[in-house]
Amino acid sequence: MKTNIEYTASTVPTQFISINGTSFAYRRFGNKAGLPLVHLQHFTGTMENWDPRVLDALARDREIIIFNNRGVASTGGETPDNIAAIAKDAEAFIDALGLEKIDLLGFSMGRMVAQQFTLDRPELVNKLILLGTAPRGGHEIDDFTPEVWAIFAKEFPSEYEILLETLFSPTTTSQQAAYKFLNRVKNGRVENRDSKISEQVAPAQSAAIKGWANINPGDYTYLKAIKQPVFVLTGHNDIIFPTVNSFLLQQNLPDAQLIIYPDSNHGAQYQFPDLFVKQLTDFLNGVK
Amino acid sequence: MKTNIEYTASTVPTQFISINGTSFAYRRFGNKAGLPLVHLQHFTGTMENWDPRVLDALARDREIIIFNNRGVASTGGETPDNIAAIAKDAEAFIDALGLEKIDLLGFSMGRMVAQQFTLDRPELVNKLILLGTAPRGGHEIDDFTPEVWAIFAKEFPSEYEILLETLFSPTTTSQQAAYKFLNRVKNGRVENRDSKISEQVAPAQSAAIKGWANINPGDYTYLKAIKQPVFVLTGHNDIIFPTVNSFLLQQNLPDAQLIIYPDSNHGAQYQFPDLFVKQLTDFLNGVK
Repeated sequence: MKTNIEYTASTVPTQFISINGTSFAYRRFGNKAGLPLVHLQHFTGTMENWDPRVLDALARDREIIIFNNRGVASTGGETPDNIAAIAKDAEAFIDALGLEKIDLLGFSMGRMVAQQFTLDRPELVNKLILLGTAPRGGHEIDDFTPEVWAIFAKEFPSEYEILLETLFSPTTTSQQAAYKFLNRVKNGRVENRDSKISEQVAPAQSAAIKGWANINPGDYTYLKAIKQPVFVLTGHNDIIFPTVNSFLLQQNLPDAQLIIYPDSNHGAQYQFPDLFVKQLTDFLNGVK
Repeated sequence: MKTNIEYTASTVPTQFISINGTSFAYRRFGNKAGLPLVHLQHFTGTMENWDPRVLDALARDREIIIFNNRGVASTGGETPDNIAAIAKDAEAFIDALGLEKIDLLGFSMGRMVAQQFTLDRPELVNKLILLGTAPRGGHEIDDFTPEVWAIFAKEFPSEYEILLETLFSPTTTSQQAAYKFLNRVKNGRVENRDSKISEQVAPAQSAAIKGWANINPGDYTYLKAIKQPVFVLTGHNDIIFPTVNSFLLQQNLPDAQLIIYPDSNHGAQYQFPDLFVKQLTDFLNGVK
């Protein structure tokens, strides 16, 4: 048996842990010196949607934990239709692992879960990372634009190609980065890839996203309760959750750093993976 | 004579160069491997207002050039009362040094000069850094708030103590960083410090700032002409040029990265000097 540090994102075996009778799939690897960095995934994403290049670079300094929440891919049960319940499942997962302090990263829908998780269980969370993000009840996030619905309505060769349009910009430079990303998530891990999601996931998560987006629109006072240092990042023109929402998050959180990348969309961190890893590592290491 | 790399911000001698009969004071040091990074100073600032800790860290990878523009401290002549003329003088200074390509950093009033410089002479500028910043005709920058005017009206022990209030936040953590900064700029350089500014500087620069702030309010289309990669940084609550202006800059520039630090004000880069140096160095080195 290898020690965790010897595994990469592409080779680490999937493990399972039972939570109230449901089997949760997860992967855990990296340098045990740091606090574990727990990842909360986007709409319809599985463990295979995390960029292995980013995970491996982050794993040099800290343990990485990725998992499928209830009802998603290789985890059992049904996906809840609200963020509060999805957050409770994530909290139960962390408790089941016996972890008492983590750094928590949420991307897109995952950043909704991450915020709720931090509000529910502040003692568990050391630092918070919100990517492609918005506050609860944020600006123009109650529905997607016609442009985004048109992307969702298209057919793609696999579940990954849609990400070329939802996570990246139409510019040549962004699309070049997009195809590199696509190659990493499609081909980085060869054996024992995650299973597909069921048809139950998308409608349940859609309802969860819409519900959370409509809680007290324009009221960001709840953010004052998040005392942790927060790292907020998105792209120049985030078509999924408009970029101004990341600015609103920074302005309303007590202790947040905001970074917006040029030429980019909802998945800015995958367009500039080396820059993202350096900046996130500095944040987690407390560089001032 | 030492080579430039052996000098620090605190030991490098001041040099002088004649531009159309006016003697311009400047200091130049650091690693000649990179493009020179030219600094444009804030309202009433001299060469002594640059943080020696930041300069020395940046100088490991590149040459640093700081100077006093026309009429300021040890440079001769009278300070112009408009940004266009101040920019022309900065351009003449770069031409006099024989430089054909530079990276250009402007802080506060200096970022107005830096934008105008880049519009006038785009071929000279490789990358642009705008700190404590706003677009021309930006949001609520035509006058300072009563809070800021009250700071300007106070008496301070020297020309540096006002910076505790204009560049930093009133929080304990920000003020702790402020006093460290104050110690660096007051005591870092012991011998051959820059001379004081004349009474002509403040009213001329005030007029220049106000004039530039009132050009086509709310019209940011001129930013499309700045094609260079731009690094935009400010603090969570910039009381001199409201923080939202940095967001507006990022959104209207073709290729800009925005960073906003927590708990900070107009001089965010001096509150987090190590973080700033790392992030700026990654930007200048083209990390993606």
